[in-house]
Amino acid sequence: MAKAIVLQGSSGFDNLRMVERPVPHPRRQEVLIRVRATSLNYRDVEIARGSYHTTFPLPLIPLSDAVGEVVAIGDEVTRFSVGDRVCSTFWQRWVAGPFEMAEASNQRGGPRDGLLSEYALLDEQAAVLAPRNLSDLEAATLSCAGVTAWHALVSEGAMKAGDTVLVQGTGGVSLFALQFAVAGGARVIVTSSSDAKIEKAKALGAFVGINYRSTPEWGAAVLDLTEGRGVDHVIEVGGPQSFSQSLKAVHRGGQINVIGYLGGSEGSINPLEIFRRQVRVRGIPVGSRASFEAMVRAIEGNDLKPVVDRVFPWTDVADAMRYLESGAHFGKVVLAHHN
Amino acid sequence: MAKAIVLQGSSGFDNLRMVERPVPHPRRQEVLIRVRATSLNYRDVEIARGSYHTTFPLPLIPLSDAVGEVVAIGDEVTRFSVGDRVCSTFWQRWVAGPFEMAEASNQRGGPRDGLLSEYALLDEQAAVLAPRNLSDLEAATLSCAGVTAWHALVSEGAMKAGDTVLVQGTGGVSLFALQFAVAGGARVIVTSSSDAKIEKAKALGAFVGINYRSTPEWGAAVLDLTEGRGVDHVIEVGGPQSFSQSLKAVHRGGQINVIGYLGGSEGSINPLEIFRRQVRVRGIPVGSRASFEAMVRAIEGNDLKPVVDRVFPWTDVADAMRYLESGAHFGKVVLAHHN
Amino acid sequence: MAKAIVLQGSSGFDNLRMVERPVPHPRRQEVLIRVRATSLNYRDVEIARGSYHTTFPLPLIPLSDAVGEVVAIGDEVTRFSVGDRVCSTFWQRWVAGPFEMAEASNQRGGPRDGLLSEYALLDEQAAVLAPRNLSDLEAATLSCAGVTAWHALVSEGAMKAGDTVLVQGTGGVSLFALQFAVAGGARVIVTSSSDAKIEKAKALGAFVGINYRSTPEWGAAVLDLTEGRGVDHVIEVGGPQSFSQSLKAVHRGGQINVIGYLGGSEGSINPLEIFRRQVRVRGIPVGSRASFEAMVRAIEGNDLKPVVDRVFPWTDVADAMRYLESGAHFGKVVLAHHN
Amino acid sequence: MAKAIVLQGSSGFDNLRMVERPVPHPRRQEVLIRVRATSLNYRDVEIARGSYHTTFPLPLIPLSDAVGEVVAIGDEVTRFSVGDRVCSTFWQRWVAGPFEMAEASNQRGGPRDGLLSEYALLDEQAAVLAPRNLSDLEAATLSCAGVTAWHALVSEGAMKAGDTVLVQGTGGVSLFALQFAVAGGARVIVTSSSDAKIEKAKALGAFVGINYRSTPEWGAAVLDLTEGRGVDHVIEVGGPQSFSQSLKAVHRGGQINVIGYLGGSEGSINPLEIFRRQVRVRGIPVGSRASFEAMVRAIEGNDLKPVVDRVFPWTDVADAMRYLESGAHFGKVVLAHHN
Repeated sequence: MAKAIVLQGSSGFDNLRMVERPVPHPRRQEVLIRVRATSLNYRDVEIARGSYHTTFPLPLIPLSDAVGEVVAIGDEVTRFSVGDRVCSTFWQRWVAGPFEMAEASNQRGGPRDGLLSEYALLDEQAAVLAPRNLSDLEAATLSCAGVTAWHALVSEGAMKAGDTVLVQGTGGVSLFALQFAVAGGARVIVTSSSDAKIEKAKALGAFVGINYRSTPEWGAAVLDLTEGRGVDHVIEVGGPQSFSQSLKAVHRGGQINVIGYLGGSEGSINPLEIFRRQVRVRGIPVGSRASFEAMVRAIEGNDLKPVVDRVFPWTDVADAMRYLESGAHFGKVVLAHHN
Repeated sequence: MAKAIVLQGSSGFDNLRMVERPVPHPRRQEVLIRVRATSLNYRDVEIARGSYHTTFPLPLIPLSDAVGEVVAIGDEVTRFSVGDRVCSTFWQRWVAGPFEMAEASNQRGGPRDGLLSEYALLDEQAAVLAPRNLSDLEAATLSCAGVTAWHALVSEGAMKAGDTVLVQGTGGVSLFALQFAVAGGARVIVTSSSDAKIEKAKALGAFVGINYRSTPEWGAAVLDLTEGRGVDHVIEVGGPQSFSQSLKAVHRGGQINVIGYLGGSEGSINPLEIFRRQVRVRGIPVGSRASFEAMVRAIEGNDLKPVVDRVFPWTDVADAMRYLESGAHFGKVVLAHHN
Repeated sequence: MAKAIVLQGSSGFDNLRMVERPVPHPRRQEVLIRVRATSLNYRDVEIARGSYHTTFPLPLIPLSDAVGEVVAIGDEVTRFSVGDRVCSTFWQRWVAGPFEMAEASNQRGGPRDGLLSEYALLDEQAAVLAPRNLSDLEAATLSCAGVTAWHALVSEGAMKAGDTVLVQGTGGVSLFALQFAVAGGARVIVTSSSDAKIEKAKALGAFVGINYRSTPEWGAAVLDLTEGRGVDHVIEVGGPQSFSQSLKAVHRGGQINVIGYLGGSEGSINPLEIFRRQVRVRGIPVGSRASFEAMVRAIEGNDLKPVVDRVFPWTDVADAMRYLESGAHFGKVVLAHHN
Repeated sequence: MAKAIVLQGSSGFDNLRMVERPVPHPRRQEVLIRVRATSLNYRDVEIARGSYHTTFPLPLIPLSDAVGEVVAIGDEVTRFSVGDRVCSTFWQRWVAGPFEMAEASNQRGGPRDGLLSEYALLDEQAAVLAPRNLSDLEAATLSCAGVTAWHALVSEGAMKAGDTVLVQGTGGVSLFALQFAVAGGARVIVTSSSDAKIEKAKALGAFVGINYRSTPEWGAAVLDLTEGRGVDHVIEVGGPQSFSQSLKAVHRGGQINVIGYLGGSEGSINPLEIFRRQVRVRGIPVGSRASFEAMVRAIEGNDLKPVVDRVFPWTDVADAMRYLESGAHFGKVVLAHHN
């Protein structure tokens, strides 16, 4: 038998309960992993507290991001061997290519069971070798936030050295975007409500920061900082309010990657602004396994280290979720499963 | 001396006046053309009546779309010879590449003088050989509407056989998009307020039409017609109201090309819908000369004929503008300069 | 028990033998199909007679291209239901994305068992719904030749209306390329040693044909036919000798897709010719499932019908292979499994 | 009057003669520059000594790469002002887009007069602002070697962080490729005949070097260094002999950029190797002005410094050419025009 934490009965952090289940056997093209670490995304918090835009059948094992060791393999497994250290992918069926190649309803952590458990089965097509330069705690942060940042800037955005990237805030996706942009020779402008967090972002390589509390019209400030040119890429995680500023901050033909709504989901824009500013706007649905694998090569080749803000024991997941909810973090909140 | 029509004093169709000006001499890399035909775009109407989103210094010669015969060439002209029949490009400085390569404030018909005249100078970089299979009246329709449709679907959209294209209405851009989509092996769904226009669109190759008056929730109708898949490309010329329907009609990862606002410019969307629907949205700023030249090869290779709705003498430009304003047209309104 | 034909003992058409094997049960993510038709590719002939550039362990069931009906499904199959009519993919593990996403040694017909049998298992990731507008015999032709042509021209080549495509010969890949190019609005030039085959190709939409026996310097002839511009895409199936002519026939920056060596594999070029002619050359490894699915949409949307030259009973596979070897065919050689 | 050096009479370094010519006046869209520095490319040496694959009418002012100060502007110049420091582009007419957009016979240094002079006219479309972080001597090195490397790796190759790049030798193009690859987060493997040059390349950021004299089968060595994966990009400047090794060193689907033939132009390959290795091969014709401008942003954003090997007075061009011919250089050979 093996332990897992499930959300059961109804939503609410208090409904996260430890259960015991049999250790499953890997079938054709599946591997069994012993989970070493997981990490939290805001989506996980929303699902657990019941504020996500859709609901899933319960009980549900939460969390999509994990790293673990392969302890058994099923028939016809060709990609991994026992002993490999692997990360799970968010989409269980999106190997490569455009988003239409992802099969809907195959996300980990809802609707499919997630990885907040001692053991878990992974389809070998939905796993990648963890970067060799990362600890377990670091490798657990990649599946959603890392892949989202990479997919936006690189797979879709074709970022190149000399580009300018606007990164909103200092959450998980934004810090990965910062690190990938710096590694790729781009210049990063970061916004935050905290001067202290801006200083931390600069230590990671950001060129300059803008405090959006003291400079609410930060779109104009970005134009000034870029000599009127605007930025080539925006990591737009703020929601409709910040989107309006992003439209002002972006270069002609530039790219706005719509990823989140940490500043609230209410608000609106006139879509003709997209025409008038002649920009490209796209939703970013995390990314494919091909994006994940390319990102791993970049992480290894440049020895990039994900920013781990704080580590909780995996059994304290409710506390960890409350901490993430508070917004005090800088980087990822990680859960340690085994030592 | 040569005749030209200028908008002078202030905006208003009544302020379009015939003037006489010396025939200019082509300088380095310029050609002089005798204009044979021009065509109207909605932008021209807005500029003339004063409703365009910006204003230009007057007097201004209107219109960006023309075909003419090269009657003299300046120094270092290598692309054309006297006797060639050429079309003007909308952007005077956008040879190729992404929109950032276009130099702002170089559009014909405002702020730079347009082509409603007997003679005009063109930079040889801002002209293309007219398709050999087209009459003068047909060739005059391409510079804005044709290039916009091509740039959206082909240069930016990489349309391929088997794709589905949603075309809104039956104006100039939309009919070109219909024709290019059909020539490229794509399936076209057209919306219109007129069953008669839908029938005409079907005669041009549209697969099916939807009357948006009788079916205001046409987004859902499009999903049904595509077995739930949605369309790959939207030619969005309706404005914010139709944009909301387009978001419902589009395939996951599909492309919405924001081009116009014939249904009005008021309204709004929540930009998170772009995230939730995981689509790509872009403004289309007409297109580059490279797009124009590729389009010419497609027009010649497939013997495509632009849809000319009605021809006016060029001296009756005010009447022609009023006619375009009425919305009664199906295809392009053309002005004949010489016989 | 179910029948299958295996190559056993050693290579040679005489070593193709009928055997009986138990009908397999589909496992996780597998479907069992009753094979309705298969088709031959030149690779199959080479493997069977022992002239392929590598050898595979025997016994081996030949053939990679098949269509069949799903008669049973395993656990976690989400893409298909019993009763669906599906085509097999050549690569068992290349869902989408660039070729590096294909797992080597997973081709059907060698090294993995092929489909010359009554029943076969397919991974659901390695199957696509057959085009609804095609008969079984037609649908059996797509997996290699069709996907190769599509991948070269569309997935990699981004062919657009108005492009010019040079197609060598009238074998399976070349005729698919011809049909996809015509459907996509491109102009096709075909080479052949037979005037009669050229006439057939023109009936399928080719713009013009060149008999390479009477015009061995056909590269220059292609330049003349394109007014000196050259072609945008070459379907290069002839081998080193024809490659030299292709280099002369191709537009600056044009694309040569290296696919085969029907004219012999001996010969050489100076690779600096690629530099001097400033072209792009790529090997085409069939294509991904994403390419296959996009091709199916194009086949359905344009009601394209693969060219079936001749049909043999599947038990006469050796005769069918000798016929393909003779080079007398125009289009695909198909094997009927069931009526 | 102003000085210029021309190749006159016939080829041969001894036929490079100083002449005096009137200072030209800039016409429409032209700027007059006072040349501050130029640099040599191997092409210049070949043209001067008469070994280039084609010949140009004489007298000819050599050299395509220069930086200078704008001292006068003609009519309708919008991109530059007097006092700007600009670099010339190799192609006088290739603003952006694919190579088909370049007008042939418009290269500087042959057939069009080059920049080995005190003053020169530039079309404003064929000039870019010099990077602000570079000295004149550094900025003079970019037009051919820098743009070629950028165009190959970035504009055509879409290099991303984590890629591996094989750079042959330590000439101008190769060192720029090394620097751009390192700035973009890629890993660089360099080949050289000199261990000392390998050490210098490592000081610039190369991951590892291979001495191709001691390891003539360096293709296999590259595979070992990449754990069997091969490299994503090859900067192929060696000619047919090294091309064969490159084919062994490259990843499935990887890219070989054919740029030069420093190791000799004799030799051949079987083009089917391109098929069997499933790679992409392209000729690189320097690059467009858009590539140049993107490269400038990368140079400024990452404060990259071109490697200047040695500086000669511009009047000693023949000595400089003999030095380049000797192959002793590491980086660019520059000519100083003014102090």
